[in-house]
Amino acid sequence: MQNFEFKNPTKILFGKGQIASLSKEIPQDAKVLMLYGGGSIKKNGIYDQVKAALGDKDILEFGGIPANPEYEVLLKALKVIKAEKVDFLLAVGGGSVIDGVKFLASAALYEGDTPWDILTKRIRTEVGMPFGTVLTLPATGSEMNSGSVITREETKEKLAMGGPGLFPQFSILDPEVVHSIPPRQIANGIVDAFNHVLEQYATYPANANLQDRFAESILQTLIEIGPEVLKDPKNYNAAANFMWSCTMALNGLIQKGVPTDWAVHAIGHELTALYGIDHARTLAIIGPSHYKHNFESKKEKLAQYGERVWNITSGTVEEKAQQAIDKTVEFYHQLDVATKLSDYTDNYNNTAQIIFDRFVERGWTGLGEHQNVTPEDVKTIVEMSY
Amino acid sequence: MQNFEFKNPTKILFGKGQIASLSKEIPQDAKVLMLYGGGSIKKNGIYDQVKAALGDKDILEFGGIPANPEYEVLLKALKVIKAEKVDFLLAVGGGSVIDGVKFLASAALYEGDTPWDILTKRIRTEVGMPFGTVLTLPATGSEMNSGSVITREETKEKLAMGGPGLFPQFSILDPEVVHSIPPRQIANGIVDAFNHVLEQYATYPANANLQDRFAESILQTLIEIGPEVLKDPKNYNAAANFMWSCTMALNGLIQKGVPTDWAVHAIGHELTALYGIDHARTLAIIGPSHYKHNFESKKEKLAQYGERVWNITSGTVEEKAQQAIDKTVEFYHQLDVATKLSDYTDNYNNTAQIIFDRFVERGWTGLGEHQNVTPEDVKTIVEMSY
Repeated sequence: MQNFEFKNPTKILFGKGQIASLSKEIPQDAKVLMLYGGGSIKKNGIYDQVKAALGDKDILEFGGIPANPEYEVLLKALKVIKAEKVDFLLAVGGGSVIDGVKFLASAALYEGDTPWDILTKRIRTEVGMPFGTVLTLPATGSEMNSGSVITREETKEKLAMGGPGLFPQFSILDPEVVHSIPPRQIANGIVDAFNHVLEQYATYPANANLQDRFAESILQTLIEIGPEVLKDPKNYNAAANFMWSCTMALNGLIQKGVPTDWAVHAIGHELTALYGIDHARTLAIIGPSHYKHNFESKKEKLAQYGERVWNITSGTVEEKAQQAIDKTVEFYHQLDVATKLSDYTDNYNNTAQIIFDRFVERGWTGLGEHQNVTPEDVKTIVEMSY
Repeated sequence: MQNFEFKNPTKILFGKGQIASLSKEIPQDAKVLMLYGGGSIKKNGIYDQVKAALGDKDILEFGGIPANPEYEVLLKALKVIKAEKVDFLLAVGGGSVIDGVKFLASAALYEGDTPWDILTKRIRTEVGMPFGTVLTLPATGSEMNSGSVITREETKEKLAMGGPGLFPQFSILDPEVVHSIPPRQIANGIVDAFNHVLEQYATYPANANLQDRFAESILQTLIEIGPEVLKDPKNYNAAANFMWSCTMALNGLIQKGVPTDWAVHAIGHELTALYGIDHARTLAIIGPSHYKHNFESKKEKLAQYGERVWNITSGTVEEKAQQAIDKTVEFYHQLDVATKLSDYTDNYNNTAQIIFDRFVERGWTGLGEHQNVTPEDVKTIVEMSY
């Protein structure tokens, strides 16, 4: 097992009716800016629940944060924060809104020239403006971690930031919000969480028995309840297990003491930037090819995954590992998530070359847990995904 | 799944050599009291490591906190804290030292007549004096939770306390400390953690799929590495998995969203109070009888435990559940932990009656996840454990 540090101070309020607890979690005298996305919360009743829970608190609002939270939009919210002397942020939304609010929590206290530096200069946020979240879409785990990914349309960039100052003070997870999520987004959430686990698990054995089993537990649960919640989002227990699995998949716990990969995310982000493909679906496209291409260094863990998660009992290590990849693809298909780039765009012929050029330009020479996945490897992986 | 709240702000520093990080975790200008137990840390080198890590910090010391931390001893430490204006506590030890320090963290800021009230009046500690820990004995999980159990020899009482102010600021978990732990204490740690999980798992199904699997993961890991670490405490990876399993068994995570039992602990505490039997061993004595006596209401979960943890594939629910209990007893025996009261004392004939009388006197009428385990049931369970 590798050495690690772990601290996650976010308070989780989980369950039916927890939105009503909102007001007691926000400091009495706070000047609050509530932020949300495209307005679906006004249709599904969550907006009304949140407003009712906030009672007569003095609340400003900023709606319209898009999927893949856009820098230019966030700058407008930052102006409001500064002009109105806001000192507490409330994200009501999915990963995009929460990630956007994390950027704002950092930018609001940032004293450099331009807050874009936080992303390009990889400035770690030690202290941010305090914020809480009401999660409306289980998927990214952003509600219980300190990371964020921000997009800048102008430069076609999608960059990450983080730091201990960006854990939410609290996150409210009411599984009833799942009842009104469209199937496509539920499937995305399942695949996103599934891949978060695989990025922290499908590497090489590190004698971290407990972490391995926790990771397998999340995968097993997603396999078990994914199809159920997709079939009937009003199944409360399926929704609750889906929601908690997404949170636990990326709250730091299962990555401690083990190597992590994240190459699938790095490559997938390019497909979103190029073609606007949903983030989770880019992972379903790239993941299987990545595992096949890096088979030799990943086969032990893939075989273990096959044995313990997919109950594959016979065959060599190689055969079990290969079957595990096949089972993963079948699972995505069962969720109606296509796994080839050509399923999403006809314009894919030059994609591998474009991504290769970008990675070379950025000097990204060593992705993955061994830091040995080169731009050439990336090119091959993308070609295998056509 | 039941509604829940979860927050655990303790920072964990895990791995080889982490004791050297100690000094940066303690506030620069703190007046520190370092507390420890009977002096084994002076023999195994941990005392020297801690002192070296603290460098030239001005540190007071208080040694001699006994197993089952004793109120009268702790009062002496409290006098030192007040007289010397200590404002940071450092526990170097196992669960007893850490629990003792939690009592002191609460008592140091308590303004009532006598700090014993914190225990008898069940006063929740919202804010305590900050403290950190260096764990020397994996078992209780006290290094990452906010609970404590304190003993008062004078009145033969063993009472619990807790509250959000009693999470350690940090805990240093270096698995190398396991190398010098005697086999009996390693076995105790394994059985203690195992029973912590069972108390939060062997109840009734609550549709908390992920929590169930996390609980099973800890049990599987303890079964896997327990005999290894007992055979060779210098096996670093076995020691690391043992240590992390003990912490995860009682840091709040697996109890969220599910019913919990804790009757085995309540009854077991009496055996420690009466005969001085090691805490973990009282759980090995009482647990199996408790599960047999409350078989009907626990059999679904016991069968699931049998299937998933012990790979019991055939038989009815009842047969699987019964086999799971038998397997549990075999596991304790494999660790050289006896499971009958008569293995520990010849003076057991009247034990059930004594405990019955005590429970009646305290008005403890409903233990367990259904709050329906009566003093009569307790009497039967203890008799079954002779």
